[in-house]
Amino acid sequence: MKEVPMDSAMREGMRRLASGVSVVATKTAAGDRFAMTATSVTSLCAEPPSLLVCINRDTSMFEAIQGGSDFSMNILLADQQDVSNKCASKDKGEARFEVGDWQEHEGTPFLNNGLVTFFCEQDKFIDYGSHRIVIGKITRVLVDESDEVDPLVFLNGGYHKI
Amino acid sequence: MKEVPMDSAMREGMRRLASGVSVVATKTAAGDRFAMTATSVTSLCAEPPSLLVCINRDTSMFEAIQGGSDFSMNILLADQQDVSNKCASKDKGEARFEVGDWQEHEGTPFLNNGLVTFFCEQDKFIDYGSHRIVIGKITRVLVDESDEVDPLVFLNGGYHKI
Repeated sequence: MKEVPMDSAMREGMRRLASGVSVVATKTAAGDRFAMTATSVTSLCAEPPSLLVCINRDTSMFEAIQGGSDFSMNILLADQQDVSNKCASKDKGEARFEVGDWQEHEGTPFLNNGLVTFFCEQDKFIDYGSHRIVIGKITRVLVDESDEVDPLVFLNGGYHKI
Repeated sequence: MKEVPMDSAMREGMRRLASGVSVVATKTAAGDRFAMTATSVTSLCAEPPSLLVCINRDTSMFEAIQGGSDFSMNILLADQQDVSNKCASKDKGEARFEVGDWQEHEGTPFLNNGLVTFFCEQDKFIDYGSHRIVIGKITRVLVDESDEVDPLVFLNGGYHKI
């Protein structure tokens, strides 16, 4: 092993942590839709069914979720790089919904052609440094009809499949 | 998409979320070493450099970290299934250190032949349901000498490589 200088340690270290690629999506009380690509997403616990996502407080998604609205967490299929790119692009707000089969369930936008969608209520959060950890209590789960599990994976600064 | 009944929603949904496989390790003030395989690990933010890990409060690792000791987060290489299996096995405490090149830095055990090791101080936590989210402030990072980034990945109930 070799030591990484601390000024590049996060980048050098974390690019080695593989993760699925998700898009978190929500609609504010005012009716504005927001979506954002996220890789800092994990399962939290089964009781209550829950997940967490880390959101930079500098983003429009952070503004959007501050109102406490429900959100969807949509895990992408290997062939959905275009959805990931769009929801991480300089396009904001409604423009990010131009790629992918976006639909709505009880006021929450969700991706109807991903690998899996979790519908969540915001239950708790913790602010830390530049980010907010948002805990979502899962209320409904949709999965791809196919039995194949073929996710888009982010690693080492690029997309991969398994 | 098809709806999953809520009693199997966590399992059916989360098995579709790919993740790197890590082992978290610590030594208590009493000198006892603990290690545990973890997949609910994410990067948190760069300022301060930090990560988080979700730990079941039913585990011996939870007992161990309650003392507030530093820990290491060790991301495994694709060929380290044996380390992952050992640190998720019924073996407890010291027995989990029998597989892998475990060494110690300033009182914290770490895996000296993994893909990357983050040394962390416990900075904050939040308890939620059956789990604790532990936020670690990263103090030192070691990476594999090789430029290849070849992690062990967990998906769909099994190990994969990219």
